[in-house]
Amino acid sequence: MLAYNVGKDDLKDWLVAETAFNVRNCGKFETIMSLGNGYLGIRSATEEKYCNEKRNTFVAGTFNKFDDTEVSELPNCADVTALKILINDVPLNLNKVEPKEYIRFLNLKTAELTRRFLWETQETGIISFESKRFVSLSDLHLIGQKISVRALSKDVTIDIISGIDGQQTNSGVQHFSDGDKRLFDKKCLQLIQTTTQSRIDFVINMVHNCFINGNKLPDNGRIVMDRRQVSMEYTFSLKKGDELTIEKFASIHTSRDREWIDKEYSLEALRERSWRELVDKSGKGYEYHAQESARAWSQKVWDKANIVIDSIDGRDQLSVRFAQYHLTAMTPAHDNRMNIGAKGLTGEGYKGHTFWDTEIFMLPYFTWHFPEIARSLLEYRYLSLPGAHKKAKENGYDGAMFPWESAWLDEGETTPVWGAADIITGKPTKIWSGFIEQHITSDIVYAVCQYYTITNDQDFMDKYGYELVLDAAKFWASRLEWDEARQQYCINDVVGPDEYKEHVNNNAFTNYMAWWSINKAIEFRDELKASRPELYNRLDEKLGLENAYMLWKERVNKIFLPQPTKDGVLPQDDTYLSKKDIDLTPYKNQTQVGSIFKDYNLEQVNQMQVTKQADVLLLFYLLGDLFEEKVKKASWNYYEPRTLHDSSLSLSTHSILASDFEDKKLAYKLFRQAADIDLGQNMKSSDHGIHAASLGGVWQCVVNGFGGVRVNNGILKIDPHLPDEWNGLKFSIIWRNDRIRVEIDHKNLSLTNETGNNKELEIEVRGNKVTLKNELKLSL
Amino acid sequence: MLAYNVGKDDLKDWLVAETAFNVRNCGKFETIMSLGNGYLGIRSATEEKYCNEKRNTFVAGTFNKFDDTEVSELPNCADVTALKILINDVPLNLNKVEPKEYIRFLNLKTAELTRRFLWETQETGIISFESKRFVSLSDLHLIGQKISVRALSKDVTIDIISGIDGQQTNSGVQHFSDGDKRLFDKKCLQLIQTTTQSRIDFVINMVHNCFINGNKLPDNGRIVMDRRQVSMEYTFSLKKGDELTIEKFASIHTSRDREWIDKEYSLEALRERSWRELVDKSGKGYEYHAQESARAWSQKVWDKANIVIDSIDGRDQLSVRFAQYHLTAMTPAHDNRMNIGAKGLTGEGYKGHTFWDTEIFMLPYFTWHFPEIARSLLEYRYLSLPGAHKKAKENGYDGAMFPWESAWLDEGETTPVWGAADIITGKPTKIWSGFIEQHITSDIVYAVCQYYTITNDQDFMDKYGYELVLDAAKFWASRLEWDEARQQYCINDVVGPDEYKEHVNNNAFTNYMAWWSINKAIEFRDELKASRPELYNRLDEKLGLENAYMLWKERVNKIFLPQPTKDGVLPQDDTYLSKKDIDLTPYKNQTQVGSIFKDYNLEQVNQMQVTKQADVLLLFYLLGDLFEEKVKKASWNYYEPRTLHDSSLSLSTHSILASDFEDKKLAYKLFRQAADIDLGQNMKSSDHGIHAASLGGVWQCVVNGFGGVRVNNGILKIDPHLPDEWNGLKFSIIWRNDRIRVEIDHKNLSLTNETGNNKELEIEVRGNKVTLKNELKLSL
Repeated sequence: MLAYNVGKDDLKDWLVAETAFNVRNCGKFETIMSLGNGYLGIRSATEEKYCNEKRNTFVAGTFNKFDDTEVSELPNCADVTALKILINDVPLNLNKVEPKEYIRFLNLKTAELTRRFLWETQETGIISFESKRFVSLSDLHLIGQKISVRALSKDVTIDIISGIDGQQTNSGVQHFSDGDKRLFDKKCLQLIQTTTQSRIDFVINMVHNCFINGNKLPDNGRIVMDRRQVSMEYTFSLKKGDELTIEKFASIHTSRDREWIDKEYSLEALRERSWRELVDKSGKGYEYHAQESARAWSQKVWDKANIVIDSIDGRDQLSVRFAQYHLTAMTPAHDNRMNIGAKGLTGEGYKGHTFWDTEIFMLPYFTWHFPEIARSLLEYRYLSLPGAHKKAKENGYDGAMFPWESAWLDEGETTPVWGAADIITGKPTKIWSGFIEQHITSDIVYAVCQYYTITNDQDFMDKYGYELVLDAAKFWASRLEWDEARQQYCINDVVGPDEYKEHVNNNAFTNYMAWWSINKAIEFRDELKASRPELYNRLDEKLGLENAYMLWKERVNKIFLPQPTKDGVLPQDDTYLSKKDIDLTPYKNQTQVGSIFKDYNLEQVNQMQVTKQADVLLLFYLLGDLFEEKVKKASWNYYEPRTLHDSSLSLSTHSILASDFEDKKLAYKLFRQAADIDLGQNMKSSDHGIHAASLGGVWQCVVNGFGGVRVNNGILKIDPHLPDEWNGLKFSIIWRNDRIRVEIDHKNLSLTNETGNNKELEIEVRGNKVTLKNELKLSL
Repeated sequence: MLAYNVGKDDLKDWLVAETAFNVRNCGKFETIMSLGNGYLGIRSATEEKYCNEKRNTFVAGTFNKFDDTEVSELPNCADVTALKILINDVPLNLNKVEPKEYIRFLNLKTAELTRRFLWETQETGIISFESKRFVSLSDLHLIGQKISVRALSKDVTIDIISGIDGQQTNSGVQHFSDGDKRLFDKKCLQLIQTTTQSRIDFVINMVHNCFINGNKLPDNGRIVMDRRQVSMEYTFSLKKGDELTIEKFASIHTSRDREWIDKEYSLEALRERSWRELVDKSGKGYEYHAQESARAWSQKVWDKANIVIDSIDGRDQLSVRFAQYHLTAMTPAHDNRMNIGAKGLTGEGYKGHTFWDTEIFMLPYFTWHFPEIARSLLEYRYLSLPGAHKKAKENGYDGAMFPWESAWLDEGETTPVWGAADIITGKPTKIWSGFIEQHITSDIVYAVCQYYTITNDQDFMDKYGYELVLDAAKFWASRLEWDEARQQYCINDVVGPDEYKEHVNNNAFTNYMAWWSINKAIEFRDELKASRPELYNRLDEKLGLENAYMLWKERVNKIFLPQPTKDGVLPQDDTYLSKKDIDLTPYKNQTQVGSIFKDYNLEQVNQMQVTKQADVLLLFYLLGDLFEEKVKKASWNYYEPRTLHDSSLSLSTHSILASDFEDKKLAYKLFRQAADIDLGQNMKSSDHGIHAASLGGVWQCVVNGFGGVRVNNGILKIDPHLPDEWNGLKFSIIWRNDRIRVEIDHKNLSLTNETGNNKELEIEVRGNKVTLKNELKLSL
């Protein structure tokens, strides 16, 4: 049972809680309560083990490829969280005997996880249990746990086995070679593991401190080793009323850590240093480190991007904080060689790969609040140009063809080739996105330009941005196919955002975005050639701009751009509108996504007018200026009923467009649905990990949709559409280095430049240009 | 709870039962009830999954090495036994709600596993459940299951998910590359997996037949694929009183199957043939195949080696049947390229490797009852001479130095290098047996000679036996070290059978057995040279016998053979008797083996007069004729109190010697202890698999100990020592192609030559030679 309203006073709308234990919901709470700091992420499996748990620990960017039948994926490294507890020889197990007063909650503010309950069996009497856990944001390698057990009704003997468990796999796939196991100084456990193919060393340390009634006990555990496991075993005698407390600190370091970019890597030195450091840190105790981490969350996240929603339903506030929490926990802000996985660091789903989810759905959050993190994420794309060149070359194209799924910088495409079963043929379905879902290259260009517009970060553009855009345009120019009949350039045989339409020609989203990308390249090239000769020459030398430019100019205006029908509907592709319509009611009302595949296989779905996710409508959101209002509206009316939202990337776009169309009710409903993908009562939807892009989408619903923050021709535009359910919305955004506070209610819009630099900023509100100097209050 | 007395009438002392479900005992029952046919073995995990289960399926001889940090091991292939059952959406789980009238039993006679219980929850009402399972002995690739669920008190909806699950690992180690998954003909699931390093293909098929109240339902399951998994999902509506029955057939074939020795391997052909065959077989139904398998058990095992114990405690009869059952289930009798693992095919312990356990502990069972199987096992050693040569070469020796742990024929040593933690240093302990536990080479020689003596199989000797003995002697001659002071050849720096004494010089067992082996080689060489010139020349050419012989003759009588002290105690090695004695009482009374390591590390134990397992005493058992009775007795009195029996290979030897010493009470007590290693109430002792050698030992206690069957100078000797707890003992043995029935009670010994050939056999009973023609009754 997921509860939203557990936090009171200071903690109101900060706590995500589970108020009754049900082993069937393991996956849900492991995911939504998972802890992370961008360097590492840990699913919140309970201390005691259950059969259907998924105990994952990931370190960002440590990909490994098991063998040639698999693709690179983020490996599930050794677990440090589990703890076996026997009380009078009875294993603590809430499945066997139900707990009382059970609660587990994640405090989004402090990023600390707490779990409490009472447990009673004949053998043990009444036991009170509490555990706390954090993954530190102030010390990226540190994980802390504190477990307290109190014997309330009789004397008990407690056995604890706690250690480092390297038997973890990614659903059966073992990515690590077994390494050395050791106990140092009778105090610090250490286990080494090395990824089998990418040869990344993981050094994992663990220290325990044990207390009875607050008095520290001597280190008298017994070391136990098993295959890929090293643990300590403790036995404690508790008198009735005594409380046993175990503090457990773990650290994870790898040979891919940023520090080794500048310094010669030495496993021996890392081993020695890391265990000694952990012993030192453990001396300061759990609370010290938990507070340090909480302080980092305040300083790095909440103080900077505090979004306040005054709503009749506290879940709205909680949802946006939940999105912000996870967007922080999952994002490797510390290292530009890494990006965000489609499930963050919270599950094995999508193997830790980066998709367009970053650029189109999550990046705006960072661009508007934390531009330095947005920059790091875009730098990852720059650093992964070798992979994009590789993919282009393999496919016979020029320039940068970005992989649909990205892992290593130089690896190129990492999309698996085979997916779920085809219900008709009994064979696995081929996943075409890695071959022909090509809009990702434009999506990156779009994000670079959006970042540039919002931040004015010229240094980024000079070093990375221009090159990315120009290199991408080279790809698109080579990708275009001359259609003799049309006398135009087409883009055939693709998958657009709507993945229920494979092998289509001239997907509107793909074609418009490619056309737009080439135009951007032309624009940048012209600017650079005119005013930045040194930079131009450098890029020309690298990319052969003169030839490329000729091709762009020759082709860009001959690209086939689908045009609206007489009814104003923009065709999603060459054939969509001629496909058969079926009654989608049962699938529109589905409780689980993908229900249509219980009746049809993908080949059949391909032949129907049914859309998985926002496609044409997303194009309107991204490049709205290109289309007339009536085309947007007619297309909305056409596609919305045909869209199943079977992708978690869909609802937020529809919510924002509904806001634009002033359909507040629908906008709010879709926002709530988007927020409920992970934070709702569907206990199965999050098993494989958090829906990272959807969280970015939730934020966009709030700031870009309800808040109405957009950019129009380089000008900041704010057109609020506050839902009727809300009384107010407040947030700050960073616009070109200025921090602007936006406060909205149903009557007024208040803008404050918190930077305090007296700069005059031109802003567009409700179609009118206004000038913000320090503060501005406008009636809506 | 393990129950022994469940079987009545025909089934008396045939059933091993679990009469109350406790999830903590999973490991115990998975092991002792595991099913197998020598080709494949499956731990008997329950249909529904539990957290601490170990769901293993092994195919003999399919070793794989994960990487260079690991050794070759038998990989845990895809599971076919699990079944997820939801009744009115409640998952069947006996941990959550306790069952009533629970029983699970393995019928040793038919090798069928049955499980039954009633289960009641509010949502489901009362449910009766029954499952049956077999691994066919008549069709080595076939596994059958039958699950029946009856809704006793209300209408229910039942969801079943059942399939092939390739997410299994060996404690986290994944030995397989993922292969194709498919549903053929809407009927047969197929999953392919290939070992990562040895590249063995596994083709696994599964067919389901579903019935309600005996009426077969159409095949209308839904296929579900996940990572390394392919399953069928079914939904059934049951009216109150209805019974759902699911028959589930699986087949496993591999590219290492014997058939591919003579025929070109084709994965495609195997895939096609195997799924079609399984569909055909499934048509005959579960009962047909279960009965075929049971018939094979009767014909191949029980009719041939029926041992009858008339005891006041039925467990004695059950124990020897249990031993016979598992010795059959674990032994790859079908393929001489394979041998028996130290845990059979019942667990990951010892990685499927073959030890001296085969030759010294298990082989006698086969030699006396199934000489063709004994021969196949010895042929494995012959075929693995390339590995033995490799090991000798790597260590700088000549001839055949057999590996302590053996997997592939040409691989040589496969003992892992690192073991459990040293409690003092915190580092893993080095496992020395792979380097210096060298008596295995003599153990094989001993077994060859014993087999030859008992069977007179001259064909075996000509093809394999002589060469094995001669090649082994070459090793031993090169292994001897000249001791200048002693003016004798020593064997220094070894581990003897007592593994608590590492790096000792002149371990009595090792030296005597080496000396004996060289003498055997000399004897065979002399015989062959004199009377089998052709064979002699072939072997001389292969082995360089002339040079080898010179060395043997020169050295054999200069080998240092430890001599008894003035008290008649044969020193275990050069230093044992001078080491310190400690009070061993707490460890002699231990409930778990290895308790001494809670107080001392191996280095410390090395310095004490404490013995892990029969060492000198085993020498007396194997080469009894070499030692005077008073030396044996004095040594027994010395070593027995100092032996902790921390190896399961120890108790049976002590029991047999106690029988020899007429200490019937102790002999029986030690027999029971040996039988209880797996079949006792210790719920933890069998977690990693069955104690294969101990089962051979249990049989030896009965036939060689209580039955008193031995060979003395080539003559069959029968000196029964029936325990007071027994009224009689009956068994048949094969002596040189004659099948002799032995019936013993406290007064008489009856011998019958069941072969009916009127041959006159000279037999020694109680020191007197008697002649058996057809039948002979002797008073004892």
